[in-house]
Amino acid sequence: MSTERTEISDLGEFGLIDHLTKNNETKNASTILTVGDDAAVIDHYGKQTVITTDMLVEGIHFDLMYTPLKHLGYKSVVVNLSDIYAMNATPTQITLSIAFSNRFSLEAMDEFYEGVYAACEKYGVDLVGGDTTSSQKGMIISVTAIGEVSPDMFVKRSTAKNGDLICVSGFLGAAFLGLTILEREKKIFAETGAQPDLEGQNYIVGRMLKPEARKDIIEFFAEQEIMPTAMIDISDGLSSEILHICKQSELGCVLYEDKIPVYEDARQFAYKLEIDPTACALSGGEDYELLFTIAQADYEKVKLNDQISIVGYMTPSVEGKHILTRGGNKHELVAQGWNHMK
Amino acid sequence: MSTERTEISDLGEFGLIDHLTKNNETKNASTILTVGDDAAVIDHYGKQTVITTDMLVEGIHFDLMYTPLKHLGYKSVVVNLSDIYAMNATPTQITLSIAFSNRFSLEAMDEFYEGVYAACEKYGVDLVGGDTTSSQKGMIISVTAIGEVSPDMFVKRSTAKNGDLICVSGFLGAAFLGLTILEREKKIFAETGAQPDLEGQNYIVGRMLKPEARKDIIEFFAEQEIMPTAMIDISDGLSSEILHICKQSELGCVLYEDKIPVYEDARQFAYKLEIDPTACALSGGEDYELLFTIAQADYEKVKLNDQISIVGYMTPSVEGKHILTRGGNKHELVAQGWNHMK
Repeated sequence: MSTERTEISDLGEFGLIDHLTKNNETKNASTILTVGDDAAVIDHYGKQTVITTDMLVEGIHFDLMYTPLKHLGYKSVVVNLSDIYAMNATPTQITLSIAFSNRFSLEAMDEFYEGVYAACEKYGVDLVGGDTTSSQKGMIISVTAIGEVSPDMFVKRSTAKNGDLICVSGFLGAAFLGLTILEREKKIFAETGAQPDLEGQNYIVGRMLKPEARKDIIEFFAEQEIMPTAMIDISDGLSSEILHICKQSELGCVLYEDKIPVYEDARQFAYKLEIDPTACALSGGEDYELLFTIAQADYEKVKLNDQISIVGYMTPSVEGKHILTRGGNKHELVAQGWNHMK
Repeated sequence: MSTERTEISDLGEFGLIDHLTKNNETKNASTILTVGDDAAVIDHYGKQTVITTDMLVEGIHFDLMYTPLKHLGYKSVVVNLSDIYAMNATPTQITLSIAFSNRFSLEAMDEFYEGVYAACEKYGVDLVGGDTTSSQKGMIISVTAIGEVSPDMFVKRSTAKNGDLICVSGFLGAAFLGLTILEREKKIFAETGAQPDLEGQNYIVGRMLKPEARKDIIEFFAEQEIMPTAMIDISDGLSSEILHICKQSELGCVLYEDKIPVYEDARQFAYKLEIDPTACALSGGEDYELLFTIAQADYEKVKLNDQISIVGYMTPSVEGKHILTRGGNKHELVAQGWNHMK
């Protein structure tokens, strides 16, 4: 963290915007006009435009006690891109609005935007607009992402078919464990002043603080000509997300506990905390992996990708939504995802 | 205001979204997929997409002491549509994210969304996505608007030419006067408990609480085949906005005080408060009128519309940015617009 402190009020709103966007480079030919006018202009001849938005509120979605601002900027972008990929689309532009209290300096904003631009760079998206304003308390971030998709190649949540295979990308549950350890260390710090002990927890803490969106999976679908029948990104836990697909597709499902991919480091750490790793995958949040269904005919193609696990299949609605445990028991799936309203 | 109170927590986040969007109807053929998936899908064959975003923070941009929630919902949409019109484009979709503390009930949210849907209806735009979350304090609203424009028919701020005429739509300064009276009545109420006296102030209070975006002006341009050379919407006062056009077009300007359109009710009320009506127009904010420049050749066409006033002309940059007063004096224009950073 930088030790200088420049007050935002010394620049004014327009000075701040100029400062924050001066190195903003355009990456997509479809970006006709970017930051600096009433609105941005995007060209989409012959493509369909996909749009999504997310709001992140300090104290609700993130804690600056243990979230570096650069990571927060990065994550604010990534969580929105993840929604675009979950439509089988390619993100091309974002807008970003931010409100912050006067406890944030210009150097703090620079760190935040470093993360924003790093994510834009990595995923090839253009920052084309936004708004900066002050807040009475804390930081609030709102990102809107735009993407493009060839006509009618987008994938909804409502179009899974009975008998389709349920797949997930990557590994699940680690972000929740990362949050758990960060919250624990924060509590210890508050009570004893002891510095955080995150030794050996790089993987799970990284999954929480700096998630990535699964661009590679969408590219794999295009290469292999796989059209998922339904797709959603996993922000609230596997259970909550598969229930969305079931509800919107009017189907039931069966998941197999032993097929749910949990990274070995995360599993070991869960045991250490006496938490069930499967519960982390089902009900933890913020993994930002993709959950999708495919026709059985695509099984051989999907098997080529070791980043994809087949975790169950869709059933008729009357059969309900269940998970079969390692011990051979059958439990009903319930949504216990992060509910910020509670 | 409704007297019932339903706690949002009784519905949960997804229940709330279902509730708030159940009467949401699609108005544009370009809206392929709306609320209810990871992202919305928009079709723009052969059109360019225009996108803008604004964030409104309680205590900074609005005061719920005197802002009815329905008006706030309406205005949150309109201020974004105004930016789309300022590009010479037609708004087609919006996304809306909102964070609010638990002091807001479901009935309060319904009032807010009534205003949102009323604006969508009036301007023919579709609400296609959003995010609802809680805040630690107050209400924060972030709206992103999408519009479309025929290829290269959008109008920037940076393309005014020397000698172009400077035009504004409607009347200026009343929104600032509306805010002034509302703030005064709030103070009187706090000190004495006296109910607000807004008798006869419908016009100026309405301009503050329920502004409209100038769709009609954009339609007039299309009918008359007028292509403004530069355009911006007036959110921070005429002075601040013309300085944006000057800076981005690398030009100077002359404004005539006696040409600046101030509505008679507003002028009288300004005198009553001993405020200069011209200062309200130059430095007040939130009028959401359009400021644009046209080639002199378009003078006869623009004259056909009594909603358009010609207030000055563009000059070479070296001649500076000035206003000629009624008294024959020449003053330098300075930006004293609402600066939320201060």
